[in-house]
Amino acid sequence: MRTLTVDLGDRSYPIYIGSGIRQQKALFDAAIHGKQVMIVTNDTVAPLYLDALVTLLGDDYQVATCVLPDGEKHKTLDTYGQIMSSLLAANHNRTTTIIALGGGVIGDMAGFAAATYQRGVNFIQVPTTLLSQVDSSVGGKTGVNHPLGKNMIGAFYQPQAVIIDTDSLATLPPRELSAGMAEVIKYGLICDAEFLAWLEQHMTELMALDTSLITEAIYRSCEAKAKVVAMDEREGGVRAILNLGHTFGHAIETEMGYGEWLHGEAVAAGMVLAVDLSWRMGNLEEADVSRAVAIIQRADLPVLPPAKMTKDSFMAHMLRDKKVLDGSLRLVLLQALGEAIVTSDINVDEFNACLDDAIEAAQQG
Amino acid sequence: MRTLTVDLGDRSYPIYIGSGIRQQKALFDAAIHGKQVMIVTNDTVAPLYLDALVTLLGDDYQVATCVLPDGEKHKTLDTYGQIMSSLLAANHNRTTTIIALGGGVIGDMAGFAAATYQRGVNFIQVPTTLLSQVDSSVGGKTGVNHPLGKNMIGAFYQPQAVIIDTDSLATLPPRELSAGMAEVIKYGLICDAEFLAWLEQHMTELMALDTSLITEAIYRSCEAKAKVVAMDEREGGVRAILNLGHTFGHAIETEMGYGEWLHGEAVAAGMVLAVDLSWRMGNLEEADVSRAVAIIQRADLPVLPPAKMTKDSFMAHMLRDKKVLDGSLRLVLLQALGEAIVTSDINVDEFNACLDDAIEAAQQG
Repeated sequence: MRTLTVDLGDRSYPIYIGSGIRQQKALFDAAIHGKQVMIVTNDTVAPLYLDALVTLLGDDYQVATCVLPDGEKHKTLDTYGQIMSSLLAANHNRTTTIIALGGGVIGDMAGFAAATYQRGVNFIQVPTTLLSQVDSSVGGKTGVNHPLGKNMIGAFYQPQAVIIDTDSLATLPPRELSAGMAEVIKYGLICDAEFLAWLEQHMTELMALDTSLITEAIYRSCEAKAKVVAMDEREGGVRAILNLGHTFGHAIETEMGYGEWLHGEAVAAGMVLAVDLSWRMGNLEEADVSRAVAIIQRADLPVLPPAKMTKDSFMAHMLRDKKVLDGSLRLVLLQALGEAIVTSDINVDEFNACLDDAIEAAQQG
Repeated sequence: MRTLTVDLGDRSYPIYIGSGIRQQKALFDAAIHGKQVMIVTNDTVAPLYLDALVTLLGDDYQVATCVLPDGEKHKTLDTYGQIMSSLLAANHNRTTTIIALGGGVIGDMAGFAAATYQRGVNFIQVPTTLLSQVDSSVGGKTGVNHPLGKNMIGAFYQPQAVIIDTDSLATLPPRELSAGMAEVIKYGLICDAEFLAWLEQHMTELMALDTSLITEAIYRSCEAKAKVVAMDEREGGVRAILNLGHTFGHAIETEMGYGEWLHGEAVAAGMVLAVDLSWRMGNLEEADVSRAVAIIQRADLPVLPPAKMTKDSFMAHMLRDKKVLDGSLRLVLLQALGEAIVTSDINVDEFNACLDDAIEAAQQG
């Protein structure tokens, strides 16, 4: 098992990464402070892992469970309300601990529930997908979607601990493994050229879930994110580099309807757009673009937007996106592989050409 | 105009109190940081004050409005969702400022919206009822009700400023003025015997809305609450004394259905129960009880619970209340007039006698 500390002053917390650690009761005991525990999960993860966790904790705690329907389309205010109802129906009080057992959707919703149940209760993340292990488990972003925008409702709220069991990746559908790998690749692209080279060397074994290599990849991804988040917990500045590809990606997700394209898939296509635009604006070599596209492809991820996306649909969603400040478009671009910047200094012609070419390529299949 | 600072480190903020100050644009300018403003109000307050505020701010800011139905029964997750929809429909981004124009329900909901719109935006309170001026404007509690419990969903979130215009009390229904006075009296009972004596001296003029005296009463109430909140922002300890009468009061509100009894009315009856129990447990003289009952009556407030409350309904709601930690009942009692304590050391016989006698007296009308 490896341990990483996310350094946020009195909100610091440990991330444990290892094989089989969801059965190490001591990790939970250290992070639970009261007698009540509410495990929030979904109907895909529950049959796999819920009983074992209830059994592990059931002797020492009053354990209640809340099993939600699986899928991004259920990441709504209504589903969040169901968690609140479960907590109240079980008479849980302010000393309860909410455990999120599942992927990013479960983590975001359970985290938002923890942030807002009786104005804040204890919270543990047990992320079961690669995406949630390397992304939402670090940084404290919680929330739900709104029909008019993704993650528009939420709070910054840090967990007490994150317990990442790499064994849970074995049950993950291949498409979701790829989606998670998109974020792993992102860390290489935005802040760690050496890690990017390491990924190029090991992508085949990583996609085959080599235990030791995947533990390393998760550790380095969490470490990269933790460093950025520690500098900027509430996303006032540098943290925005974590959104490489996300402004394009959110437009894709919103236009397609949540859940049609996985978040990581949309981000992958979005990262290619951002890398391409960086090259068009003179920041990258053509060979850099090829390397970025190649590693994304090796993770079985899309490198073009969906064929149904139009220029208008991109623009409509990007202007509503929260990364647009006061109407002027800001994007994360690369200055080199491993070095991202946030800029509103976008060349409009190159921006249009970048989108037009990608849309045309996508439509030609 | 008087100014009070709520001292919470980097979350400190000013409270301005005075006649006509809702028209002082400089107070708003100092607290608005972006270009977008969303005024959240209700259909009772809007006809009185909304146009003037829109006109005041409209030249310098993009002002949108969200007018909600009036009443505690609308303090729900659904209504909160309406605020979110209004913000998104108006394309408001993370630099927006939400202004709560109304009573406690509007302040709580708009504050929770500010805490959770895009994970937190700027927030100004313009409380228009006496209750919200002396209670919810200080301390940062925001949230909505759930069918299974009051204020069960919410966050701690501090405003940028609070602007209290005493003129708005002139349009307040007498019953709501009384309900607000319950909290004013509470501050005297829990922490300021000298203020309690001042209230006994001036209650007649206060109920007649003498401008100078009501400004003083609001200032001293906010000051008392600010002191307590500064010691304990997240309600881990001493802040609980602010809940004198509230555990009983919440049981009354929940049993009656939100809005049937005003919050302040329920708290008034609850404070009499707490004072009575304090006397039965030997902490107060009989004359202290008489003084407390008399000042509450002079503010035209109930001193007995509603006739339909039974012992069972009190107990069922009090055990679910968030002030009950791990099943053991904790109550705020008085050790003397002007000195509150929080205790779980409750004499069960006296507790039962206190409730039984009050219920019997209420049923006899």
